[in-house]
Amino acid sequence: MADRVKVTFQSAEEDGRERQTEALRGASVLDAAHAAGVEIVATCGARGRCRSCRIKVVEGVVPPPTVQDTIQLGHDAVRDGFRLACQTKLTDDCIVMAVPPRSEVGHQILGSERKVGDDAGFVLDSGVVKHVVEAKAPTSEHHQSSDHEEVLEALDAEVSREMPLDVLRKLPVVLREQRGRITVTTFQDRIIDIEAGDTSEQAYGMAFDIGTTSIVATLLDLQTGEELAAVGGMNPQAPYGGDLMSRIAFAQFDLKKLQTLRAKALNALNDFIKQACAEAEVSPDHVYKIVVVGNTCMHHILLGIDVSHVGLAPYAPVVRDALVMPANDLPLKAAPNARICTLPIVAGFVGADTMACVLATRIYESEETRALVDIGTNGEVVMGGRDRLMACSAPAGPAFEGAQIRHGMRGAVGAIERVEIGSDVTCTVIGGQAASGICGSGLLDACAKMIDAGVMDRSGLFRRKDLDALPPAVAKRFVKDAHGMEFVLVWEDQSGKSENVTLTQGDIRQLQLAKSAIYSGVAMLQKVMEVPGEALSELMLCGGFGNYIDVESALKIRLLPELPSDRVAYVGNAAALGAQMALLSETERKRTEELAARMEHVALAARPDFQDVFIEGMKFAGDPPASEPRAEMATAGE
Amino acid sequence: MADRVKVTFQSAEEDGRERQTEALRGASVLDAAHAAGVEIVATCGARGRCRSCRIKVVEGVVPPPTVQDTIQLGHDAVRDGFRLACQTKLTDDCIVMAVPPRSEVGHQILGSERKVGDDAGFVLDSGVVKHVVEAKAPTSEHHQSSDHEEVLEALDAEVSREMPLDVLRKLPVVLREQRGRITVTTFQDRIIDIEAGDTSEQAYGMAFDIGTTSIVATLLDLQTGEELAAVGGMNPQAPYGGDLMSRIAFAQFDLKKLQTLRAKALNALNDFIKQACAEAEVSPDHVYKIVVVGNTCMHHILLGIDVSHVGLAPYAPVVRDALVMPANDLPLKAAPNARICTLPIVAGFVGADTMACVLATRIYESEETRALVDIGTNGEVVMGGRDRLMACSAPAGPAFEGAQIRHGMRGAVGAIERVEIGSDVTCTVIGGQAASGICGSGLLDACAKMIDAGVMDRSGLFRRKDLDALPPAVAKRFVKDAHGMEFVLVWEDQSGKSENVTLTQGDIRQLQLAKSAIYSGVAMLQKVMEVPGEALSELMLCGGFGNYIDVESALKIRLLPELPSDRVAYVGNAAALGAQMALLSETERKRTEELAARMEHVALAARPDFQDVFIEGMKFAGDPPASEPRAEMATAGE
Repeated sequence: MADRVKVTFQSAEEDGRERQTEALRGASVLDAAHAAGVEIVATCGARGRCRSCRIKVVEGVVPPPTVQDTIQLGHDAVRDGFRLACQTKLTDDCIVMAVPPRSEVGHQILGSERKVGDDAGFVLDSGVVKHVVEAKAPTSEHHQSSDHEEVLEALDAEVSREMPLDVLRKLPVVLREQRGRITVTTFQDRIIDIEAGDTSEQAYGMAFDIGTTSIVATLLDLQTGEELAAVGGMNPQAPYGGDLMSRIAFAQFDLKKLQTLRAKALNALNDFIKQACAEAEVSPDHVYKIVVVGNTCMHHILLGIDVSHVGLAPYAPVVRDALVMPANDLPLKAAPNARICTLPIVAGFVGADTMACVLATRIYESEETRALVDIGTNGEVVMGGRDRLMACSAPAGPAFEGAQIRHGMRGAVGAIERVEIGSDVTCTVIGGQAASGICGSGLLDACAKMIDAGVMDRSGLFRRKDLDALPPAVAKRFVKDAHGMEFVLVWEDQSGKSENVTLTQGDIRQLQLAKSAIYSGVAMLQKVMEVPGEALSELMLCGGFGNYIDVESALKIRLLPELPSDRVAYVGNAAALGAQMALLSETERKRTEELAARMEHVALAARPDFQDVFIEGMKFAGDPPASEPRAEMATAGE
Repeated sequence: MADRVKVTFQSAEEDGRERQTEALRGASVLDAAHAAGVEIVATCGARGRCRSCRIKVVEGVVPPPTVQDTIQLGHDAVRDGFRLACQTKLTDDCIVMAVPPRSEVGHQILGSERKVGDDAGFVLDSGVVKHVVEAKAPTSEHHQSSDHEEVLEALDAEVSREMPLDVLRKLPVVLREQRGRITVTTFQDRIIDIEAGDTSEQAYGMAFDIGTTSIVATLLDLQTGEELAAVGGMNPQAPYGGDLMSRIAFAQFDLKKLQTLRAKALNALNDFIKQACAEAEVSPDHVYKIVVVGNTCMHHILLGIDVSHVGLAPYAPVVRDALVMPANDLPLKAAPNARICTLPIVAGFVGADTMACVLATRIYESEETRALVDIGTNGEVVMGGRDRLMACSAPAGPAFEGAQIRHGMRGAVGAIERVEIGSDVTCTVIGGQAASGICGSGLLDACAKMIDAGVMDRSGLFRRKDLDALPPAVAKRFVKDAHGMEFVLVWEDQSGKSENVTLTQGDIRQLQLAKSAIYSGVAMLQKVMEVPGEALSELMLCGGFGNYIDVESALKIRLLPELPSDRVAYVGNAAALGAQMALLSETERKRTEELAARMEHVALAARPDFQDVFIEGMKFAGDPPASEPRAEMATAGE
């Protein structure tokens, strides 16, 4: 991919001039505008805390909205393509128009009938409130009182009398340190902390998305929604099982091993809290709310809840309710004053992360039927809209992460991510270096292009018998080693420093199993909900992997059901965004409880028609025009 | 004291015969009856769980009622002298009448107009409920559920949905162990524990009275009120300061030392829990509620709350509210499933123990004005009745415990506990052995008798100038050593194995300071409430020390204000009894919150008239008829 993108700035005024510029991929629209001499005002200093730099994306693709876009502009506006220039990173050529709030009168110009940035949008109500009061230590021996009562007396707000023991322990010193000037922090109208002096500006929260493979965390300012730090990394439990089932198997009926996994997660969370707070230069003592989402297994393990039976039919969770608890209960020592909130769970394999995606995509208020697909080692599919919502899990396994693929690897430097087949095969490698393997999106692209080129048929069989029909350089790439026939994507280095990067028939089979899981999940929900393809108005891809998928290729290999490619949208890491929304807004967090209660779970494997759909889903889409032999389904290992 | 007492059993029938017997001091009335062939039925096996062995005390003194007496018979009945024969220990000669519930028709015979054992008495409602239910682990994959929801579904009771993390952690195993037969324990309609099988019979609680000097603990059956074990011992904090002020001083502005004291208390409580459960052969896991009372300082230290400012004017507590918390918050590891309840505090030196005394004595519902005096290193006085209640603290210091007295010691074997002065001095020693010192009650008795005998005047000065008026053997007992004049109570052993046990003028002064604190407390409340002596219908002595006091002597030395001795009653360890009542009854526990709210605190030392009352309180009551020189107040050290 090119390192530079073209940005065109249109003027909101009818006689306005267009201005075009080039910018580095990854730069913000605001930076590009300033570099091009286009005046876009950033009143808050480009921190996503005001609406002065609002733009509308007229053409081209920009990344999914951030939580700050949503807070400042409202859900409807971001869906209509409005963004904050300071928050929007350039990823592709695009045309944007600056529409600062002052020009809000000109709705018609924008071609939208919806009010932008309306008040019915996102409400910043994290539930955390800091009250600065002047309380006095008791002074009269006759009128008996206590430090606790003097603080309650000074508080003007409706707050529960109860003070946790850890707050009572700090109270006498705090109350006497700055002559009674104190800051009382409440969450849900209950006192959770007390400090000397005025610390009302410091109220932070963290959103965690704990995936089977990786953990994503952001530190947000609870009062402005500003993202102060984003950290994350591998889930340190990964060595104990790459996918959910093997993770569960490790700890099944062995509480000591459960403790091992739990400790790994707790340590990681503690480290991420420290790291994010250090980066943002804020005190972890000022982190008051932490929203954690993750699949049922990650959720239970973090809480130290036995997952033995999550791994056995009927795969029931121990608890599905949203939970709120003091950090000390986990314990999460890095943020001692925080309250930990988990989102509700739908089923053993449709977890709190899916609820976060539902929240972030607002699929629940759609008048049309939409689908939401989170592709991961365990995929989840949600389908429906305002009237009905159904969810199922799609156990794709780790093939998309490069596991169980001969030359598979994660999407890192050296991984083939795109494949073209013309007179020969050309691969794009991440980082532009020599190829050392192939990642999930590369695998998917390779298969799509191999079908198009006639290298493989729609059942997933190599076309070894029709080699004459292929360009010679391509045909030459079928080689045989001890394990069987392989297709070479990248030849070994002449110096012998690298070996061939190939695809085997077994690799194709792994991909077919993985992609059919996703395909069948969507197809089964369509079947159960009686939603034919043409009635599905949008398919939203989310999760880290979705970002790297070439949609045309995904449709070609039938990872997704037959849909026009413009109805497929990548909506970003919706689980992390949903966690951020629940962090910043109790309205949103409580909404997940209602949503979970009305979510219907479809247990795919328990349905008699699932097997047929799954086998059908193994197939790739249509072969090239060339004559197609009626190939039966290839059997694994061939 | 004699080892045997006389018991006379009257018949409830008009023509019934009296039967008289002798019994060992300390035996129960039931045992004495059975030994004498008097038929008293003990349906429950003498465990205080029924009313079949009810008696009425017609004459003589029996110990204060136990919580089981109160539960079975009601408050009014025990006040009228009704008891359970199985719970009543013989301490003195007495006449009792067996009145089993069947003969309840004969009210008039009993000379009482009040209904005995009425339903308006004590209600057993500990707040702990064990629900035995048949829950099933989830069985359907389609109808998604969770272990948690299946348990809630099976529960017939109105219970909060929330399940603490420690319960969720046990849930999967418990639910599948006995095919879904489980016992769910709730406290205040919140789930606190879950177990496999039916454990509904096992529900226990502990009541703790943490005194500055000693800790008293009882293990009770929450469903019957039965006392299963009574344990206790020295407060292990004692080496860090004998009285409250020195205990506070040790930890003042030094949180590390506070932790030292706290750890001592926690260890002691954990040990007592284990010990009591071992004695009663019950599992500490079945201890669900623990009520802790103690003075403000003990209360705060146990909770790890800074006491620095409790020791400084205006001596304000950090918190006065009644608290309820999981054992893990303290942490109290020996009873992991328990909820810890503390009673409310009135002031820095009128603590939760005083509230427990108020509860146990029911002074709050008295139509007449009564006083309640808890004698300890820090004494407390409560005065009033139904309309008004006032409390003050009376810092007596440790003299009553033998501290700061030349030959002082605690009330243990070898301590002089009674003194008679005739032609010579005769002392009664605990255990009947040679005297090795004098305890608080002995000191008090000695002073009273020295005044009566003319050895000392009412200002507390030795009458050394009138030695001729004394019997020669008594006069000889004034000896002079390096420190000054002493009065010998017991001469040293001829063999030189023991030394003289004496009282010095300084000892007398210490006693005067201590007793004036108590006296002034009562007198000041009388003054503030305008209650002359004749309007004070009862003075209730409580606390361990009160048990050993000779009331006549206490009045003689003016430990207590001028009252007819029959208006002074020893009501037992009311703090421990109150803790037990709050343990067995949420009605009673919550009553302490209302009572604390209406309790008025009088800060003695802050009142300008206190000094005069205190100096007046230093004096002893009237000298013997002999001519009395007008002695001025002796100064300390003389």
